[in-house]
Amino acid sequence: MSAITQNERPATTARYSSLAPPRRYLFGPGPSMVHPRVYEALSKPIVGHLDPFFIQVMQDIQQLLRAPFGAGDGTTMVISGTGSAGMEASVANFVESGTKLAVFANGYFCDRIIEMGKRQGANVVRFEKPWGTTFSDKEAADFIRREKPQLVAYVHAETSTGAVQAGSAICSAAHDAGALVIADCVTSLGGIPVDAATTGIDIAYSCSQKGLSCPPGLSPMFLSQRAMTWLGARSSPVRSWYLDLKLIYDYSTVSHRYHHTAPISMFYALREALVVIAEEGIENRWERHRRCHDAFVKGVEAMGLRMLVPEGQRISTLNTVCVPEGVDEAKVRRRLLDAQGIEILGGFGPLAGKVFRIGIMGPLATEENVQFLLEELRKSLTAEGYRP
Amino acid sequence: MSAITQNERPATTARYSSLAPPRRYLFGPGPSMVHPRVYEALSKPIVGHLDPFFIQVMQDIQQLLRAPFGAGDGTTMVISGTGSAGMEASVANFVESGTKLAVFANGYFCDRIIEMGKRQGANVVRFEKPWGTTFSDKEAADFIRREKPQLVAYVHAETSTGAVQAGSAICSAAHDAGALVIADCVTSLGGIPVDAATTGIDIAYSCSQKGLSCPPGLSPMFLSQRAMTWLGARSSPVRSWYLDLKLIYDYSTVSHRYHHTAPISMFYALREALVVIAEEGIENRWERHRRCHDAFVKGVEAMGLRMLVPEGQRISTLNTVCVPEGVDEAKVRRRLLDAQGIEILGGFGPLAGKVFRIGIMGPLATEENVQFLLEELRKSLTAEGYRP
Repeated sequence: MSAITQNERPATTARYSSLAPPRRYLFGPGPSMVHPRVYEALSKPIVGHLDPFFIQVMQDIQQLLRAPFGAGDGTTMVISGTGSAGMEASVANFVESGTKLAVFANGYFCDRIIEMGKRQGANVVRFEKPWGTTFSDKEAADFIRREKPQLVAYVHAETSTGAVQAGSAICSAAHDAGALVIADCVTSLGGIPVDAATTGIDIAYSCSQKGLSCPPGLSPMFLSQRAMTWLGARSSPVRSWYLDLKLIYDYSTVSHRYHHTAPISMFYALREALVVIAEEGIENRWERHRRCHDAFVKGVEAMGLRMLVPEGQRISTLNTVCVPEGVDEAKVRRRLLDAQGIEILGGFGPLAGKVFRIGIMGPLATEENVQFLLEELRKSLTAEGYRP
Repeated sequence: MSAITQNERPATTARYSSLAPPRRYLFGPGPSMVHPRVYEALSKPIVGHLDPFFIQVMQDIQQLLRAPFGAGDGTTMVISGTGSAGMEASVANFVESGTKLAVFANGYFCDRIIEMGKRQGANVVRFEKPWGTTFSDKEAADFIRREKPQLVAYVHAETSTGAVQAGSAICSAAHDAGALVIADCVTSLGGIPVDAATTGIDIAYSCSQKGLSCPPGLSPMFLSQRAMTWLGARSSPVRSWYLDLKLIYDYSTVSHRYHHTAPISMFYALREALVVIAEEGIENRWERHRRCHDAFVKGVEAMGLRMLVPEGQRISTLNTVCVPEGVDEAKVRRRLLDAQGIEILGGFGPLAGKVFRIGIMGPLATEENVQFLLEELRKSLTAEGYRP
């Protein structure tokens, strides 16, 4: 926490060069490739945050989010912050001092939920399993029956491991116990079905990037009627004013009374991203991602590589491929970046050095791009000494 | 808190029309007109949030913010949320349970600070004066000496009233009492001098729009060495993880360790906005805004109108003009919007119906635009029955 780094640099009036981002193929877990039409929308002239035109943009977004979320009779809205702000909104609005929060912990982002829960005063209990594994219906239900929490949280698609956690048994047991359920859908929304209403999720949050092919900056949210009722009855103030969902819902959906000045351009971009998705059809989009995932898995397995997560539990938009014995994964990634501008990421925490994390999402999810990626990955692995 | 509004609308697969924002001259208090080069930067291809190119963008922004803030030996950084997120970051990071927070309350945004302070567990004392007035050096110092707070907050340029609050006496008395000082610079940064270091401000936050001519979405911040030291020694966890300044500082300036996925496009935009400002020269920019303000005041006074705030205490980028007796201000504004796409806003709270709030900022701050605005305002007032 020292300011020295900044202060040693001289005050400057020199010209800064024009912004010229390098060309990247964003095949990492995120941020992911943005659709060209979204960039166009980003650069359209802004209007006021209470302008009828902008109110309509917010309403369009709420409506367009319903299919990706599978919103049923629930409510959708958008938080003016990144996916992590959506996580904090979910935790802060549904935790009161002493709330018992049960978290399924099998990756990085569950730990972040736990950290946020503690900071908000929750009494957190965790059910831990190794990164890359998931919880069976029975394990999930037993944990909830034993702990009797008031709030349950799990990560639907865990970005750090590539695993999908089924939610129905969690939600069903939680509701039997009178608890609400938070699902982290940051990596799932727009890429794989979320099915929030039929699964029984009460609170879901995501991001504007990844499966939605918009730049990062906003957090779409889903709330069940049960969650809305709970929130309406909450008497203690939410500690965060900026992320107070009652105030945000009122601004965006009910009275349009000023809360904060929404990031107008980012809302333009998110609307366009969602229109692109609606035009493709959400089922078609899920299917396209699944096809590309299948082709990718087939390709890496043909190279003699192994997937970390068992079949049937994999996120189809984010692949975790085990690094073969004796290969320096950082060098493989560096080579891909230098040779072709391809960004893939490695693992971290318990998976550091052990996996590549490779996202195939949005505009990149085509058969052609998958073959290009496989070929470049093969070249880079070979250059680093890998022999299948 | 009912979901009915959303649910009654049918699920849709219909095409949404292409995004076509109406042409607006944003002469309100914000969001304000965006510089054309900033729109260009917004639409450049994104890279990863840990890409060396993006780290450089963050560093450029930190450096470029130093002159507008008058950062001296302090630190600058950026929060991934709007100005209100910056306010919450300031309050949440420097309030612990029971912290005595003294607030100078002469407008809307002081009340928002108070609301946030209470939610974070502060013991808040307020010194209230009517909207549009300011606190004298003696009033400020007496209040602080009497209350002996640990944290003091004031609004440098109050968007709801158009008044500038001088900060030196506040900061000096606060430091004598061992307190840190938060200054809301949402409406001042980039438009009028903030002089954070020489004034003695410890924590300042602003927005990316208004004086910086970038779309809303980010919150630039300034922290004095005193504030950084205090933060480094803080032992209780900040309740907000998303707005935890130690974590954000570490990500953006020190280790570049992942905290959240920054809104890449918005950072591109903010960098470009700040480069435009550096090219003009911050002093030239302040002077340009002051000249336009003077011309505007001269113009409205020539029409027989009166400014709400006394000369010498006015924000030069945001003018509050008293609505003349018998004129319906909403109709005047509606006419301006319909005839020319000119957005100005009215007052609210105690000033509802009593003032026009007219911002002349960034690309709109030219003599020509001021004359255009004055002429249209005159026409609209006359049409609503005003005779000077």
